[in-house]
Amino acid sequence: MITAPSIILCAPQLGENIGAAARAMKNFGLSDLRLVAPRDGWPNERADAMAAGAVDVVASARLFETLHDALADLNLVYATTARERGITKELLTPAEAAKRLRAAAAHGDKTGILFGNERAGLDNDDISLCDAVITIPTAEFSSLNLGQAVLLSGYEWFRQADATPAARTEHSPFHRKPTRQEMFQLFDHLEGELMKSGFLYPPDKQPPMIRAIRATLHRARLTNLEVQTLRGMIVALVKGKHRVKKD
Amino acid sequence: MITAPSIILCAPQLGENIGAAARAMKNFGLSDLRLVAPRDGWPNERADAMAAGAVDVVASARLFETLHDALADLNLVYATTARERGITKELLTPAEAAKRLRAAAAHGDKTGILFGNERAGLDNDDISLCDAVITIPTAEFSSLNLGQAVLLSGYEWFRQADATPAARTEHSPFHRKPTRQEMFQLFDHLEGELMKSGFLYPPDKQPPMIRAIRATLHRARLTNLEVQTLRGMIVALVKGKHRVKKD
Repeated sequence: MITAPSIILCAPQLGENIGAAARAMKNFGLSDLRLVAPRDGWPNERADAMAAGAVDVVASARLFETLHDALADLNLVYATTARERGITKELLTPAEAAKRLRAAAAHGDKTGILFGNERAGLDNDDISLCDAVITIPTAEFSSLNLGQAVLLSGYEWFRQADATPAARTEHSPFHRKPTRQEMFQLFDHLEGELMKSGFLYPPDKQPPMIRAIRATLHRARLTNLEVQTLRGMIVALVKGKHRVKKD
Repeated sequence: MITAPSIILCAPQLGENIGAAARAMKNFGLSDLRLVAPRDGWPNERADAMAAGAVDVVASARLFETLHDALADLNLVYATTARERGITKELLTPAEAAKRLRAAAAHGDKTGILFGNERAGLDNDDISLCDAVITIPTAEFSSLNLGQAVLLSGYEWFRQADATPAARTEHSPFHRKPTRQEMFQLFDHLEGELMKSGFLYPPDKQPPMIRAIRATLHRARLTNLEVQTLRGMIVALVKGKHRVKKD
């Protein structure tokens, strides 16, 4: 089990933002919250209220007087800044940072991500205590608040190891892919009725029309249930046509 | 120029959340906001207040009476849901969705991402109007609000085409990488002084010690200015030692 990074908030101002950070953390499996000299003291009722389901993260947050103390036991710490600061320091995307944090954590290193306060961010002295800097890429307009910055950092940490397939189709246990034979029966049924109806006309256009219809049906990646439903629809449409004719 | 996806909010409740969505959008270059029957009417002062620097996105938002109308001119639309719904529908990660949205937009398709309201999300009828479903992967605890869901979707859209290098070191224009010759001069200087000081002892350990010191200095990827600073530090330390001895 890899230990997720600690989140260190340096001199945060509003309790609401501490609560929002805690909630953002918990969404992505982060739990160690460290607070350096929060402006409005600690504990803070507004942090509890904003944390909602993540009150446990707020309740177990640790308080430190100085940034030195808060970082002391960590092996790898990245500072988050909104903009490039013109200091000679390695700048990482959140994705690259998450990759490196995971690699370090897998070796047993204790890691952390440091965030500055809502108004001024981190100063260059704070940044000088960290291994490198994370900057979240944005469009020209950039206005991420503290909770959002924590959210995006947590998301990248989680995403890097998330096993969710990029794309998948959920089927109920009663659904399965049709066999080729079931697909061929659908083709025969549909093409037979279309032939009788006069839709496949003129005769020299029949082969390409049939191929196009089959391609459409393949592309839909039908379940066996959907194949049966389509065949029922064909039966109903043909019957309905006859009924109308008889009327 | 690729057109970014439209963001469609279906029956949003609080103006604050519409404003937060607009702000999240603008961070990542999205500008077309569509509102389907917002509960508290439109325009909404709270949306303006929350949008802050993104009031232009709020001001140009378009109002629709039905979801059908809001989606009518789009070619590809993904619905966002907090949890899997047990419907036979393709489920995409935000990263995969962003990739497909970009590919479609590059072909000139108009794309969109649909979000449900804060309380109930989208119902299965809403989802049946969309091509596929995006689910944001989270830990067991999952509590993303509307603005955060829009933020993460926008982030993935932006990230997929972002040219920011994963890692880079910013140097001031006065800095450059040292030449090999400058590095060799640093090695000679440091190793010479260490030899005189008695640090490189015993003699048979000298070669591996020297290699280890050089490896450290290479790993630091020094700038030419930092090489000069280090040499100044060596001079000062040697001088200081002599001064102490003379006292």
